[in-house]
Amino acid sequence: MPSIKSKEWSLANRPVGMPKLSDFGMRETDAPEPGNGEIQVRNSWMSVDPYMRGRMYDRESYVPPFQIGETLQGGAVGTVVASKHPDYAEGDLVVSMAGWREAWTAAPESVMANKVPKTGLPDSALLGVAGMPGLTAYAGILRVAELKEGDTVFVSGAAGAVGSTVVQIAKIKGCTVIGSAGGTEKCKLVKELGADHVIDYKQHDTYDSLLGALRAAAPKGIDVYFDNVGGDHLQAAIECARPMGRFAICGMISQYNDTEPRPGPNNIIQVVGKQLTLRGFIVSSHVDLQPQFLQDMAGWIQSGKMKFEETVMEGIETAPEAFLGLFQGRNKGKMLVKLT
Amino acid sequence: MPSIKSKEWSLANRPVGMPKLSDFGMRETDAPEPGNGEIQVRNSWMSVDPYMRGRMYDRESYVPPFQIGETLQGGAVGTVVASKHPDYAEGDLVVSMAGWREAWTAAPESVMANKVPKTGLPDSALLGVAGMPGLTAYAGILRVAELKEGDTVFVSGAAGAVGSTVVQIAKIKGCTVIGSAGGTEKCKLVKELGADHVIDYKQHDTYDSLLGALRAAAPKGIDVYFDNVGGDHLQAAIECARPMGRFAICGMISQYNDTEPRPGPNNIIQVVGKQLTLRGFIVSSHVDLQPQFLQDMAGWIQSGKMKFEETVMEGIETAPEAFLGLFQGRNKGKMLVKLT
Repeated sequence: MPSIKSKEWSLANRPVGMPKLSDFGMRETDAPEPGNGEIQVRNSWMSVDPYMRGRMYDRESYVPPFQIGETLQGGAVGTVVASKHPDYAEGDLVVSMAGWREAWTAAPESVMANKVPKTGLPDSALLGVAGMPGLTAYAGILRVAELKEGDTVFVSGAAGAVGSTVVQIAKIKGCTVIGSAGGTEKCKLVKELGADHVIDYKQHDTYDSLLGALRAAAPKGIDVYFDNVGGDHLQAAIECARPMGRFAICGMISQYNDTEPRPGPNNIIQVVGKQLTLRGFIVSSHVDLQPQFLQDMAGWIQSGKMKFEETVMEGIETAPEAFLGLFQGRNKGKMLVKLT
Repeated sequence: MPSIKSKEWSLANRPVGMPKLSDFGMRETDAPEPGNGEIQVRNSWMSVDPYMRGRMYDRESYVPPFQIGETLQGGAVGTVVASKHPDYAEGDLVVSMAGWREAWTAAPESVMANKVPKTGLPDSALLGVAGMPGLTAYAGILRVAELKEGDTVFVSGAAGAVGSTVVQIAKIKGCTVIGSAGGTEKCKLVKELGADHVIDYKQHDTYDSLLGALRAAAPKGIDVYFDNVGGDHLQAAIECARPMGRFAICGMISQYNDTEPRPGPNNIIQVVGKQLTLRGFIVSSHVDLQPQFLQDMAGWIQSGKMKFEETVMEGIETAPEAFLGLFQGRNKGKMLVKLT
């Protein structure tokens, strides 16, 4: 049971505005042989997700900030190489928060590791459609937005890991779906996933144009908005909302790199007259849905109702580039880094 | 059964920005003797409420816009003078939407009139604490904001008809209450109603100052915000909200006379990380609570737990001035016009 070489990423300094490659630093360490209660794991995939940008600020939030020089954290899937933990054996598949590194040795609880039963799914899906982004979509659209059959649903970031899953769940539930995404190729994907209407926000790059496109797609208005983007999209959604509209506010990627406060929607007063509900949420508050989620998702994937797209970068060296790509719209579906 | 002279108010033209007295026009008509199914009523009190400003715009909304030259509508209480309706008799007390006039003859249903059983309350209370504003406060704080014992509650417009009731309900339910109001006299009232902390927004007339005052009053943050005001108050409430905070958005009086869209809260992104719920509501969606509301309110008033303040103008001629006074902060508690 030798130690394993592991390249790992940390913050070299706190990014200001859009992060740069020079904000990250890589070093090589060892994942030593495990002590009592520990496991040694070689990661095969790691995840980059927009929410990680929030942890790069030094501020109080729902997850503690990353510390300069400490190895970054994030979703990863790997295989147990050696175990001194009674519940884990060599060869077990493990999902953990010990990403941004090639290998690690730790007590499973300390990195939120969980053993994954063998499924028919590729391992990478455990970081996407069958993992955290999938549960985010599932909890957000079904519980937070209280989706009802027949709703007209608007989803921004509809080609992303979360958005593309939301589009498909809403179609499975008998809704009319409008997805927005950036660029012809992504819009084609969103359409293939079943969206009734697609808005290319790069073609509608002013608020008025975006609003016009949404009005054309939903002449009677929208019942539900699933927000991954914030900014103009949120304002347009308020403008087009029908009475009693429900908004699941999952993220605002258009604003994550803002260095100055940005004015909010100038029509928020409509929340009163239309009796809208805007509800922010974090997936960790909805882990109680996990068993039902996995059962539904496995069924949908097997029956061909749920498709998933991945954008894969190769090798630990590419991790910062993959992360930056999220804010440049470089991913279709889940952005992943393949490690072995 | 002669006809009754009635002075009535209508819009002379649609106000732009803050309404002016010249936007209103008065004429004298007759309330004729009632035909079959009709009642003839002399109003004793009429209500002016902030929401009426919304009906002065020519736009689609939850209530149809007022038409130029047609008699305005609003809450009124009056006494039946003559009846050709089987359910009404001379002397009955009636609450209706046939305000802005001294007397009227109509089928009760056509003006949303309801007979009121004799209570121990003064008639004017039927337009305030035991009427629409009271139910607004009750439904908003208990159902929409899902108030829990021990919550720290922030109420804007806390000296107004709705806000002053919210303050007292929250105290009855065992909460810590911070009220904001404009001026020394109103703040004194809010304190007398039981608020733990009072913020005079006229003393804190910048966003930073308001935020500082709220932080000082609620160093651990707020769980619930009841919004009557919008603007800086809403932004400060988001800034001070604790995780899972609940916002009942009842109105935004600071914005009702805006002629240009106003930037929304520049920190709305915090809705995600704090998992806030912002929920707009209209009292008419909560009339199912009416029986429980009246029972609770009568009990609270009788036991001295619920006080109510009124600002009374005398005579139908003062009605537009009373209405404009709402936006100038001239009322403590419910603003009313006494007609007889």
